[in-house]
Amino acid sequence: MLPGLMQDRPLRIIDIISFAATAHSTQEIVSKNVDEPISRHNYAATFKRVAQAAHMLVSLGVKSGDRISTLSWNTNRHFELFYAGPGLGLVVHTANPRLPDEHLIYTINHAGSRVLLLDRNMQAIYERIADKLETVENVVFLTDAERTPQGYQGYEALIADKPATYDWPLFDENTGAFLCYTSGTTGDPKGVVYSHRSVVLHGLAAGLSGALGFAAFDVVMPCQSLYHATAWGLPFAGPINGVKFVFPCDKFDGASLQALIEGEGVTFSGGVPTIWTMYLEYLRQTGGSPGTLQRVIIGGSAVPRDMAVEFDRLGVTVQQIWGMTETSPLGVVATPTPALAAEGDAAMKEQIWTRQGRMMFGIEMKIVSEEGEALPHDGEQDGALMVRGPWVLSRYFRADDDATDQDGWFDTGDVSTIDRFGFMRITDRKKDVIKSGGEWISSIDLENIAAGCPGVKVAAVAGIYHPKWEERPIMLIERHDGADVSEGDVRAYLKSRVATWWMPDRIFFEDVPMTATGKIDKKIIRDRHAHALDSA
Amino acid sequence: MLPGLMQDRPLRIIDIISFAATAHSTQEIVSKNVDEPISRHNYAATFKRVAQAAHMLVSLGVKSGDRISTLSWNTNRHFELFYAGPGLGLVVHTANPRLPDEHLIYTINHAGSRVLLLDRNMQAIYERIADKLETVENVVFLTDAERTPQGYQGYEALIADKPATYDWPLFDENTGAFLCYTSGTTGDPKGVVYSHRSVVLHGLAAGLSGALGFAAFDVVMPCQSLYHATAWGLPFAGPINGVKFVFPCDKFDGASLQALIEGEGVTFSGGVPTIWTMYLEYLRQTGGSPGTLQRVIIGGSAVPRDMAVEFDRLGVTVQQIWGMTETSPLGVVATPTPALAAEGDAAMKEQIWTRQGRMMFGIEMKIVSEEGEALPHDGEQDGALMVRGPWVLSRYFRADDDATDQDGWFDTGDVSTIDRFGFMRITDRKKDVIKSGGEWISSIDLENIAAGCPGVKVAAVAGIYHPKWEERPIMLIERHDGADVSEGDVRAYLKSRVATWWMPDRIFFEDVPMTATGKIDKKIIRDRHAHALDSA
Repeated sequence: MLPGLMQDRPLRIIDIISFAATAHSTQEIVSKNVDEPISRHNYAATFKRVAQAAHMLVSLGVKSGDRISTLSWNTNRHFELFYAGPGLGLVVHTANPRLPDEHLIYTINHAGSRVLLLDRNMQAIYERIADKLETVENVVFLTDAERTPQGYQGYEALIADKPATYDWPLFDENTGAFLCYTSGTTGDPKGVVYSHRSVVLHGLAAGLSGALGFAAFDVVMPCQSLYHATAWGLPFAGPINGVKFVFPCDKFDGASLQALIEGEGVTFSGGVPTIWTMYLEYLRQTGGSPGTLQRVIIGGSAVPRDMAVEFDRLGVTVQQIWGMTETSPLGVVATPTPALAAEGDAAMKEQIWTRQGRMMFGIEMKIVSEEGEALPHDGEQDGALMVRGPWVLSRYFRADDDATDQDGWFDTGDVSTIDRFGFMRITDRKKDVIKSGGEWISSIDLENIAAGCPGVKVAAVAGIYHPKWEERPIMLIERHDGADVSEGDVRAYLKSRVATWWMPDRIFFEDVPMTATGKIDKKIIRDRHAHALDSA
Repeated sequence: MLPGLMQDRPLRIIDIISFAATAHSTQEIVSKNVDEPISRHNYAATFKRVAQAAHMLVSLGVKSGDRISTLSWNTNRHFELFYAGPGLGLVVHTANPRLPDEHLIYTINHAGSRVLLLDRNMQAIYERIADKLETVENVVFLTDAERTPQGYQGYEALIADKPATYDWPLFDENTGAFLCYTSGTTGDPKGVVYSHRSVVLHGLAAGLSGALGFAAFDVVMPCQSLYHATAWGLPFAGPINGVKFVFPCDKFDGASLQALIEGEGVTFSGGVPTIWTMYLEYLRQTGGSPGTLQRVIIGGSAVPRDMAVEFDRLGVTVQQIWGMTETSPLGVVATPTPALAAEGDAAMKEQIWTRQGRMMFGIEMKIVSEEGEALPHDGEQDGALMVRGPWVLSRYFRADDDATDQDGWFDTGDVSTIDRFGFMRITDRKKDVIKSGGEWISSIDLENIAAGCPGVKVAAVAGIYHPKWEERPIMLIERHDGADVSEGDVRAYLKSRVATWWMPDRIFFEDVPMTATGKIDKKIIRDRHAHALDSA
């Protein structure tokens, strides 16, 4: 090899906000904070506050490589810590306040954080778990001086007298910057350590038109939590493109979001479907319009078709995304292409709404059969979805082994198709796919089809033990209030829509168990009906 | 430091075209080639041809680290070599056919290229210099089988029977990929070695809305030469964003460009001002319209105001860019921001047309005084423009010393201001700035102002020796045909527009000497009038 002769400047997170402070100095960051008036700081002022926050952290005695934990909503102060911490070479653990106490304690101890920085309304959580935290030496409330709880230190008071510049250190771009834990449906939460390199590359790619497509004229209101995979990278993709930010703190109800959209001219937002269900409901009740809002990216679970149609009618583009904490998180984003557009507007929307998204530059994807053979991108055959790239994890924090195979592929646990346009469609979670006599049955596809049967409110499908076929599907149905749909009705509806061997062996009319995050709890269904087909 | 735990996949150029072949497989690359019909290959087909070209290069005996030289226009085959070569770990030297023979020979020998790949109409050049080339072992004409000159090997014949896949090697992302020589107004040309890392990062950043802002719906016709700093990175930023390409070969006349724009739906193009002067002249003569063309990026020298105004009237946005071979080349791109837009459309356009461009993410910039002190970004004070970042060179090829200072700053040789919006405006080349009694006078500013005086066609300013002030400005004026503007007229015009001490000591009415690339030749002016002020 002949070495290139270009500068080996490391990619650093601090250079993102430094750039915005220079090239987009007057652009604003507008933020709610708990029980405080709305604040406004432009990028130039924010960069100074980031330096002040860094001096504060240093004054608390932390050193590069140390971890700090945040327990905070979507606010400017939380955003500032996203730069001050990594700028110093610290790792920011974004603790999830929605976790059960035992998991929250586990993650902060596992991170080994020396400082905990938290919002005013986290005081009760903190005082409940304080004596179980093994490494926390300092607690800082992310409040102004007058609203800091008695007996505690407050952020604004601590940074007020600090210098507004900092001599940011240079270090290896593979240095850790964020520690995000997966929610851990089984076993302990697992930590993913993002590096400066992975965050900057993800932020660069996220801003492209084939992903989030940001411009300096965008006003971005992140409604995905900053503690969920760094709000899908928006805090980094935003300043790279000079967007104005609007942070809603913890107020995600329809009225609060609408007030910010109207007051600040929000053009772009994103979050899980639940938030947007509430928002659309609010618009229906008030007869309001989304005004300046142009685009909403939705992830976390599949976008309900009704939601996409309603936003479309209101002139708002819905873009579905798919990703995981392990992928920083962007894996695919549903964006149009000329090839799709050539099929007409209706066909293009159908394609975009029914797929998780299209490949983006930087993430390699393949789908493989049970034998590990790569499957074609024909939109039909599905297989285990494997990903690889510079913002995909290699190993969980404190784990002994890599999370990838020897060629660097990470198994997402999802089963999907990929089509000739590069669109990926999840057909199932790997653990929920039903393996019947060597063939795969998609429980998600069966659920989606059954949900279309008149009278059906929720349909849930799980695979359980079958003495002949290894596994066979069973279905749980919840009826709409007052509906009298029968097993015969459901079977008749399914008959013309699915292959004969996909027909569930049993259909139960009973409540569908849900997880704490609103997903169907397949584990409970499988336990409850484990022996339903033993004598089949 | 705590190490991050993300995959350390190297950034590789081959992954760009591999991505496009998967996510934008049906998007086309349309190309002219010398004396051949227009060709069309989509990205999927192109990726196969890239693999075939790689097999061809291997069959010629080259190994990773070797250099190959191209002498080629803007064609699909040249584009394919931009991937096949680096994909193998080779370094592609894009030789400049416009160079004098002695420089061309020097660069190919200095590169040490083992293979020369050239277009059909380069045969005369090649045969003129062949016996001076010290390292070239193989010559391949980039032609189809029937048009390969007698006695030579042809590209299409060589790749035809090669496999359409290649097992691309993994290597360090700092491996060299391209070798581009600066034109060298003084001394020998100097080589800049782009790395895989620098090319991929530059390509990522170039696609953002704050730079070229590409989308999959763009149809990009590069009219900047592929041998000039890889056509400003378009061959990489394009596929990352899934654009359709249209390559005009060496046909940059108005009629040829207009035929491609109309026939292929070109939305985006770019190049030096000369090409666009010809194009606008063609539109005026034919009464044609730019049709689908939306944007033209112009660099190489400042965009003439008339050109910007005329394109604006035709509904085409002109974006000025500034960069150098040493900066890959994008340094700044003139893009709008909300802060500018707030000043109104006319003011915004004025700002954009009179600045070289705005800072883009990835390039740090500062301006410094003669004493090396950083100057404020006030749009007024000018200083030596210094740049730093992952796509700025660290050292010239085969040089013994770094081209940067110890903090990694590269001195561009330009003198500029930076304003509070992050816009950079070149006020002079460092070597053309006039140092009068410790103060700087911008020769470019003086020329631009004098050019506004009625009757003046061209004004040129240079600094020459002055016994008291060290240097003082003199001015050369060319009159418009039939104009009778006098020295008194020019002085009266300048008097109300420049500081007293900027007034030229002498004004000469004579022809202004120009360089081969159409720039004012200050060196000749200085030589011609070296002693004009000796007795002042």
